[in-house]
Amino acid sequence: MEINKTEITEWFKTLQDQICAGLEDLDGTGKFQQDLWEREGGGGGRTRVIKGEIIEKGGVNFSAVHGPISKQMAATLKLEEGSFYATGVSIVLHPKSPMVPIIHMNVRYFEMSTGVWWFGGGIDLTPHYVVPADAQIFHQHLKNACDQHHPTYYPEFKKWADDYFFIKHRNETRGIGGIFFDHLTDKTGISKAERFAFVKSVGEAFVPAYREMVQRNISKSYGEKEKNWQALRRGRYVEFNLVWDRGTKFGLDSNGRTESILMSLPPVANWVYNTPPEAGSEEEKTLNFLRKDIDWLAMTV
Amino acid sequence: MEINKTEITEWFKTLQDQICAGLEDLDGTGKFQQDLWEREGGGGGRTRVIKGEIIEKGGVNFSAVHGPISKQMAATLKLEEGSFYATGVSIVLHPKSPMVPIIHMNVRYFEMSTGVWWFGGGIDLTPHYVVPADAQIFHQHLKNACDQHHPTYYPEFKKWADDYFFIKHRNETRGIGGIFFDHLTDKTGISKAERFAFVKSVGEAFVPAYREMVQRNISKSYGEKEKNWQALRRGRYVEFNLVWDRGTKFGLDSNGRTESILMSLPPVANWVYNTPPEAGSEEEKTLNFLRKDIDWLAMTV
Repeated sequence: MEINKTEITEWFKTLQDQICAGLEDLDGTGKFQQDLWEREGGGGGRTRVIKGEIIEKGGVNFSAVHGPISKQMAATLKLEEGSFYATGVSIVLHPKSPMVPIIHMNVRYFEMSTGVWWFGGGIDLTPHYVVPADAQIFHQHLKNACDQHHPTYYPEFKKWADDYFFIKHRNETRGIGGIFFDHLTDKTGISKAERFAFVKSVGEAFVPAYREMVQRNISKSYGEKEKNWQALRRGRYVEFNLVWDRGTKFGLDSNGRTESILMSLPPVANWVYNTPPEAGSEEEKTLNFLRKDIDWLAMTV
Repeated sequence: MEINKTEITEWFKTLQDQICAGLEDLDGTGKFQQDLWEREGGGGGRTRVIKGEIIEKGGVNFSAVHGPISKQMAATLKLEEGSFYATGVSIVLHPKSPMVPIIHMNVRYFEMSTGVWWFGGGIDLTPHYVVPADAQIFHQHLKNACDQHHPTYYPEFKKWADDYFFIKHRNETRGIGGIFFDHLTDKTGISKAERFAFVKSVGEAFVPAYREMVQRNISKSYGEKEKNWQALRRGRYVEFNLVWDRGTKFGLDSNGRTESILMSLPPVANWVYNTPPEAGSEEEKTLNFLRKDIDWLAMTV
């Protein structure tokens, strides 16, 4: 039997519940607060935000929206007119400690009244300080999730993430990448059930992968220098999300719920004119890692 | 004799010098630091930044760039291919005190090897707290500059600023507006000399207008509440510049000098999920003033 949108939507809701429970457990102190909202054109969402001991500002959003497709959406997505249904879970977590990475995940499903459908999503990690051994562990989590489903998924979607999470005007990647995928259909002979199973594996990989990133770094000490660097790197995160991220732009252009879309922005960000890090510093080492096509798994760490 | 690009360029350089001198005098402590830079495709600029007692972060940039027009530029500007020449002065000042407004000015000249040319520019004010009496004085400065040249300039360019400096996804104007104009040519019978004279008046209005805004507000006391609000309003400034400002987008898309383009971003900005100001507060009053089509000059203050 064909997977339907109700089944997918229910699974995304459950995923949101599971991830929120997992993150509350990881944080130890913070509890998610929920806002339910409705979209004027149809549908709505459950926005959940947390302010905790480890997570300074985080959001885990579920939404399921529908309605007639706007001319702008039709043009952007190269679709015929009709009505759409879109559902997904989006997460961004900004940790308090600069030694712990920022993380982002999105899994989504889109379908049209014309019968067109696809899955998309991704997970990527933005360490304020890149630690190659951690990058390797993180990518191994993602590769494990991918390899359960198709041998080309990890290499293909890893490259896609390098290209997508790229701050062109800085000539820097946003972080150490991860996986990104979009428009996954059944046209190449992979069934809808199998695509859905893959998306489930991605969603389920999130908490264990981030838990390990937190546990490996949370006890590291830091001071003003590291907090200042974190504020600058958070500025870069803002630049990526507002200038280049297609999801953010699409949301803002299509009258999405602004507060839910922009929950991805950090609590604080700094901009200082033209101050490259000192030669040989940890900050400079991190910058040198912010480039495409690094094979983290093949690196000797 | 026809005004030529060399004369315009030299005048913009002199304007930069005069404004920097005026702002150093106003600030009393800060001194501009200059970076000279060259553009790979042709031309370059003088980026000047200040960190002072009143101005926490400010930039006064001059640039004059030229070269073959890219396909993207030609498409965006609806121009035939050829070579372009663009010169101008851009300013953004972020004051330390939340009681003193952020200000922006840009004046620019563009010409093509095909003979097409135009002037553009604008000045707008972004108070963290809107004071109608100040808004009126500020608009009067701009109206005086406009009225020396054409009776329709102020009403036309005031409306253009309301439409341009608008944060669509927040349904808020960036501040109390000002004037904005673009593609000013001689096609409607106004000569190039007269257009240039108008742009000069705009450039020369900047320091006196801002001086008055500073002097009227600098001695006001403030505390943590006002600093927090300033950080949120600075976040909105970031949102406008990175999501909606065509100048910023054009610069980042066309491989402009990123550090000069993004000198407009505040030193610090905060984002807090969904926290509207308290009913009846000064912050709420300000929000209520952030809308288009307020006739500041007709207001009883």
